[in-house]
Amino acid sequence: MKIVTLKQIAEELNLSITTVSKALKGYPDVSKKTKQRVLDLAENLRYIPNSFAVSLRMKQSKTIGVIVPANVHHFFSNVIKGILKEAEKKDYLVILLHSNENFELEKKQVDLLISKGVDGILISLSNKTHNFEHLKKIIDHNIPLILFDKIAKIVNCSKVIINDKKAAYEAVVYLIKKGHKRIAHFRGDLNPQNSIDRFLGYKQALLDYNIEFDPSLVYVCDNNSDFEDGYNNAKKLLKDHGKNIDAIFTITDVIAMGIIKYFNTHNIKIPEDIALFGFSNWFMSSVINPSLSTVEQHGYEMGEKSAHLLFHEIECKQQNIVVKPQIITLPTELVIRESS
Amino acid sequence: MKIVTLKQIAEELNLSITTVSKALKGYPDVSKKTKQRVLDLAENLRYIPNSFAVSLRMKQSKTIGVIVPANVHHFFSNVIKGILKEAEKKDYLVILLHSNENFELEKKQVDLLISKGVDGILISLSNKTHNFEHLKKIIDHNIPLILFDKIAKIVNCSKVIINDKKAAYEAVVYLIKKGHKRIAHFRGDLNPQNSIDRFLGYKQALLDYNIEFDPSLVYVCDNNSDFEDGYNNAKKLLKDHGKNIDAIFTITDVIAMGIIKYFNTHNIKIPEDIALFGFSNWFMSSVINPSLSTVEQHGYEMGEKSAHLLFHEIECKQQNIVVKPQIITLPTELVIRESS
Repeated sequence: MKIVTLKQIAEELNLSITTVSKALKGYPDVSKKTKQRVLDLAENLRYIPNSFAVSLRMKQSKTIGVIVPANVHHFFSNVIKGILKEAEKKDYLVILLHSNENFELEKKQVDLLISKGVDGILISLSNKTHNFEHLKKIIDHNIPLILFDKIAKIVNCSKVIINDKKAAYEAVVYLIKKGHKRIAHFRGDLNPQNSIDRFLGYKQALLDYNIEFDPSLVYVCDNNSDFEDGYNNAKKLLKDHGKNIDAIFTITDVIAMGIIKYFNTHNIKIPEDIALFGFSNWFMSSVINPSLSTVEQHGYEMGEKSAHLLFHEIECKQQNIVVKPQIITLPTELVIRESS
Repeated sequence: MKIVTLKQIAEELNLSITTVSKALKGYPDVSKKTKQRVLDLAENLRYIPNSFAVSLRMKQSKTIGVIVPANVHHFFSNVIKGILKEAEKKDYLVILLHSNENFELEKKQVDLLISKGVDGILISLSNKTHNFEHLKKIIDHNIPLILFDKIAKIVNCSKVIINDKKAAYEAVVYLIKKGHKRIAHFRGDLNPQNSIDRFLGYKQALLDYNIEFDPSLVYVCDNNSDFEDGYNNAKKLLKDHGKNIDAIFTITDVIAMGIIKYFNTHNIKIPEDIALFGFSNWFMSSVINPSLSTVEQHGYEMGEKSAHLLFHEIECKQQNIVVKPQIITLPTELVIRESS
C-alpha cells in the first residue's frame, strides 16, 4: 500500500483537495455530511497527515526531543517518567534519544531533532561533551532549549539542576562527623559539571574540617559502566591503601553497588571496616545488604519541572513573548542507612 | 536566526538554487571550486538539509524507530545498547519511544514514526496491546517491521524471541528436582505472549512431574512497577498460605528483588524457608543477598539481531527484493545461585 494522499481522497469523493483538507481540519465552512464522508474514507484508507506539512502549517509539531546520556541509570528513568507525564498532559509526543555518553552522537542527534522540526528540546549532556556549538545552534534556530542535571554553565538557556556541591558536601560532612578521616572519593568523568561539583563538595568538606586532601584517595570512574568501575576501583583501592581507609563517597549508587559486591566477596565489612555513601537513591539501595546511605536526588521531579518549563517557553514563543533564561535548583536530602 | 534555505545560499553566492543543491549532493557536473564555495558557506551559515525533503529524494531517512514498553528494565537497556551498536555501524539514527505499557500511546507513536518517514521499525509490545491494526498499518505502508521479545504471533512480520515456555519449564523443573512441590508463580500481565508462555512452561513442568496445579499459587503482577508488585504479592502470599510454600518462580528478576526485600525484613530465609528463581539475569541478581538464581536472556544479542534483521529487510526493500518473514529464537540458560 502506498501512502494515501489528499488528492486520492478528493478524487474518490469527487471533491476538491481544498475541501478535503478543510474537512480533515474541521473547518466550519464544510458541511457536516461532507466532513463525515471525508473522515470515513480517510479512516478506511488509513490516511496519515503529513506531519511535516502539518507542522509547517500549524507552526508546531506537538513533538519535543529529549537527549539523555545513558539509559541504564534509574535516575534518568525517573526523569523520563516525569517528562512523559508532563508531555501527556499537554498532548505532546516525546522523541527520546540516548547519546550513550558519545559527543559526536549527541551532535548528530541535535541536528536530527532540529531537522525533524521539534517544538523544543531537553538535554542532559554526555560526559564527553566539551564544546557547545550544537547547543548554540538550537538557540540560534529559536527552538526553546532546557538543560537538566548535566549542564553547561556558559550556555544561555534555562536549566534545572540540583546543588551538586552542597549535596556532596553534606554527605562527606556526615561521614566526618561519624569519625571518619581517611575518606576516598570515587568520582565521575573529568568533564561533566556535576562530576566536578561533587568533587569540589568533597574537597570543601575536608578543608572545613581540617582534613588534608590526599589526591591518591580520588578514583576516576570513566569507563561508562558504573558497576564495573565501582568493582574494579574497590579492588585497586585495597591494593593501593590496604585497610588504611575509613570511608568511600561515590558519585552514584551503582558505583557503590560494585564496591559492595567486591567487599562482600572479599571479607571487608561495611561499615565496620569501611563505610559507604552513595548518590541518587536508586531503589535497590534500600534492598542491598548492607543497605546504602545516599543522597535523594528526586529524578521524577526534575523531569516534570524541566518539561513544564520547556512547555512554558514554547507557549511564550508562540505568543512572541521573550523569556529570560532561568535556573531552577531542586532540593536534595541525605538518606542514612546501614552502610554508614 | 531563521532556518537557512538553499535560496539564501544561492543568492549570497550568485548561483542558481539547482547548482547549490547539486553541489551539496556532490553531483559531478558542478566544478570543484563551486562545490567548495557552497560547502563553506553552508557550514558557516550552519545549513541543515531539510530531512523530509532529503528522505523523499533519497527514499531513505537513515533513521529507524524503536518502541519499547518500559525504560526501567535492565533487559531493555541491554536490548537498546545492541540496537544502537548495530545502527552506529550502518550510520543510522535511532528514534526511541517508550510506550510506558500504554496501548493508546503505542498507537500514536506508530503514527509518529510513519509520518516522520523512518526506514524501518522495531517494536516490543506493551502489556496492554490487545489488537494489532497499528502493526498492520506499518506493513501496509511497506515499512520493514521487526517485533522482538514481546510479540504478537498473528502479525505477519519477522520476529526475534526466546523460547519463553521452554526457559520457564527448565527453571521450574530445576526447583522440582531440588525437592520443591508447593511452587508459586508470580506471573506478568494476562495479555503479553511472553507472560502467557512463561506461565504455560510453569504449568507444564508441574504436570510432567505429577504435581497438581493450584491456581491459588499464581499471583498476577500487573501494576507496572515490578519491584512493588513483588513486595506486595510476597506479603499477600504469606497471608494466604503461611509458610506452606516451598519456592517461587517469578517472571522477572526485579519482581524477585521485591520478594527478597519483603522476606529479608520479615525473617523468611531464602532458600531454607522458601527458594526463589527469577528471569532475565539482571546485573544486580549476583550482588543481592542471597544472590538470585535466574534465566539468562541475552538482551544485548536480542537488540543486535533485531536491528541486523531490520537493516537486512530495509536493504532488500531498496533493491525490490521480497523477503519472507522469519523467526529467530535465541537460546537461554539457567544461572544457579544461592536463592535456590
